[in-house]
Amino acid sequence: MEHLTVTAAQRCVIEAVGQLGTENVALEQCLGRVLAEDVRANRDQPPYDVSAMDGFALRSADVAKAPATLEIIEDIKAGDMPRKTVQAGQCTRIMTGAPVPPGADAVIRVEDTQSVSDARVQINVPVKPDNDIRPKGEGMRNGEVVLVKGTELTPGAVGMLAMVKRSSVQVYRQPRVAILSTGDELEGLNDPFDANKIPDANSYALMAQVQALGVQPTLLGIARDKPEELRLYLQEGLQFDALLVSGGTSVGVHDYVRPTLEALGVQMRFWRVEMKPGHPMAFGATAESFVFGLPGNPVSSMVCFEQFVLPALRRMMGHASIYRRTVEARLTHEVKHKHSRTEFVRVMLSREEGGYTATSTGAQGSGILASMSKAEGLLVVPPQSKGLAAGSLVTVQLLDGTAYQQEAGGEW
Amino acid sequence: MEHLTVTAAQRCVIEAVGQLGTENVALEQCLGRVLAEDVRANRDQPPYDVSAMDGFALRSADVAKAPATLEIIEDIKAGDMPRKTVQAGQCTRIMTGAPVPPGADAVIRVEDTQSVSDARVQINVPVKPDNDIRPKGEGMRNGEVVLVKGTELTPGAVGMLAMVKRSSVQVYRQPRVAILSTGDELEGLNDPFDANKIPDANSYALMAQVQALGVQPTLLGIARDKPEELRLYLQEGLQFDALLVSGGTSVGVHDYVRPTLEALGVQMRFWRVEMKPGHPMAFGATAESFVFGLPGNPVSSMVCFEQFVLPALRRMMGHASIYRRTVEARLTHEVKHKHSRTEFVRVMLSREEGGYTATSTGAQGSGILASMSKAEGLLVVPPQSKGLAAGSLVTVQLLDGTAYQQEAGGEW
Repeated sequence: MEHLTVTAAQRCVIEAVGQLGTENVALEQCLGRVLAEDVRANRDQPPYDVSAMDGFALRSADVAKAPATLEIIEDIKAGDMPRKTVQAGQCTRIMTGAPVPPGADAVIRVEDTQSVSDARVQINVPVKPDNDIRPKGEGMRNGEVVLVKGTELTPGAVGMLAMVKRSSVQVYRQPRVAILSTGDELEGLNDPFDANKIPDANSYALMAQVQALGVQPTLLGIARDKPEELRLYLQEGLQFDALLVSGGTSVGVHDYVRPTLEALGVQMRFWRVEMKPGHPMAFGATAESFVFGLPGNPVSSMVCFEQFVLPALRRMMGHASIYRRTVEARLTHEVKHKHSRTEFVRVMLSREEGGYTATSTGAQGSGILASMSKAEGLLVVPPQSKGLAAGSLVTVQLLDGTAYQQEAGGEW
Repeated sequence: MEHLTVTAAQRCVIEAVGQLGTENVALEQCLGRVLAEDVRANRDQPPYDVSAMDGFALRSADVAKAPATLEIIEDIKAGDMPRKTVQAGQCTRIMTGAPVPPGADAVIRVEDTQSVSDARVQINVPVKPDNDIRPKGEGMRNGEVVLVKGTELTPGAVGMLAMVKRSSVQVYRQPRVAILSTGDELEGLNDPFDANKIPDANSYALMAQVQALGVQPTLLGIARDKPEELRLYLQEGLQFDALLVSGGTSVGVHDYVRPTLEALGVQMRFWRVEMKPGHPMAFGATAESFVFGLPGNPVSSMVCFEQFVLPALRRMMGHASIYRRTVEARLTHEVKHKHSRTEFVRVMLSREEGGYTATSTGAQGSGILASMSKAEGLLVVPPQSKGLAAGSLVTVQLLDGTAYQQEAGGEW
């Protein structure tokens, strides 16, 4: 199989996967999910003209030559319905959100008035018709689509669902994801300490990457380098929507994983991608499942997850925005680049003079997991690059943990 | 009480709140939490010099005048320990991650060799000492701090915890958050339809904002405008670390909420903030709880949550980065600004020529929840602004749902 560029391999993955089916979830559980239906308003909101202020509802003609004194005929709170009609020379005391009474065509806020007695108020300034009135249906009109199919349910969208009283909603279902590590050299999290083995960090790093997408994966454990054992694990994993197999970078294991997957009916689409870290990176499919063969070391495996698994899972969930957000950043130091593969350099970011600067997390060996635990972004060095000079503008994919900053960003 | 600026009110909140206590959580549950301990490596990783490639471990002096043919004395896979010492003229076949055998000082990748027989291999090019060897302890050294107290547990950090075999870890505990809506005008999610009432969107919008921080809040429901009922609800809410009360913008309810909170021992720090939307915005504290009095309409309430509640909750959780990330964006249209309050304009963002542009979501009435459900950011108009011209550079706080984009951001 040819060696694909990252972009070509990404396209191959994204063209293969599609949205999963839909399911009904409770309002309390829907945050971050993607709407699989258009949602319509079930009423006008507000249901009638309401006051935008605490103040007085009046006839604007009565106060054209303010100051003017009016008779208070009623008190209307939010939740009350007015019982009287405002006649010439009259007004009602009105609270924010309360219905504007018949006869009145404007509201004046309490700050522009002066109490004369319990029954009379002086209006200090004239107001125009419609002043401080929120017209019926301003927020939404009965029957209109307030959230379109495909919308990601952010807090604002969840609020809108509550506003139209949807206690449950149709969304795309989440992928069921299985994670499998392979290799005789691995030590499980709960296995006794063995200085000659390598802790299985991959299962948990991948678990957390999947969790960060709002999905709870199933950890299948560690398959040892025995063909029958591996076959059982892979068979189990292929029952999921997506199976992430890490390890298999050693030739011995490759020999098992690939033919076993193929024997289980997986059509392999690619086995190698021209990237660093992450050279051995495989992708295949059955009629009902997708398999991602990730490198054995956690840094490579995490970087490959970012490029291929993350967009695939987000696409399955119905998202339109499936790639990590990228920013431009100024490089604080030189980055060498000799080979013809796309390189992902783990960087920390800081804000200076309105822009980002990017600095390598340090040694970039693919065995150095600290480079990933410190990273705020992945700097992309394109394959044709001859190296990046200090000060040059580079593209950085933003990783988890970058949605917040230490300072408010201004004084206001 | 004086009317504070947003920044002054934010400082007041942030100075009042601090980190909560700590708790031990399982590795599977710790994503997004903040470390309350330094985490140390429990071994050297790799535990010995290992091969970085599939290839042959050899003595570099033997191949100084390559091509040279060497005798293969052993096969070493990852997980195996070498049993033989490499002597002059010898090599071992070695897999990525496998220990470099005694006697060998370099590895050559299989691509630079040529098989002669099962027992002999031709090395095509010379290699330097240490070539393609990952030295013992390169990834981490036994006893060194690999994650410092205060680190947010991103997927990379979770991977690192697994690498040092921490099946549980000490983190700051999450705040227990209660949400209460108030007002006779509100219709609960499961109440029968009443055209004269307003659905309680606030409880759910705030719920989702809290959920987006990784915290599951408790919804207390709707307190009607009856002093005894309100008192019971507020009393219950003050048992939580943070109580979010929305509503109370009408004077009648104000009359109840403020004295009731004070009677319950709450010290009110402020009641008004010079902002739009969100003018009535209160903050108070007891010895064990913080109360946020949010405006009654969902847009204002959500905007106030963003400015005050979000940083407070993130601080309680131990985060150093507590504010929304801000970006600079170019405004696509004029924004008028007359009053002296800080205004938060809900905007959509798009990427053009490497930078963001910001466009209003449309009508900005505080009753128009669609402005919040569509918003990707909050444009900050400072109080002293005389208005913002089309094309000017503005500051935008990024909201949830902006971590991903539709295109990969480049071709590589």
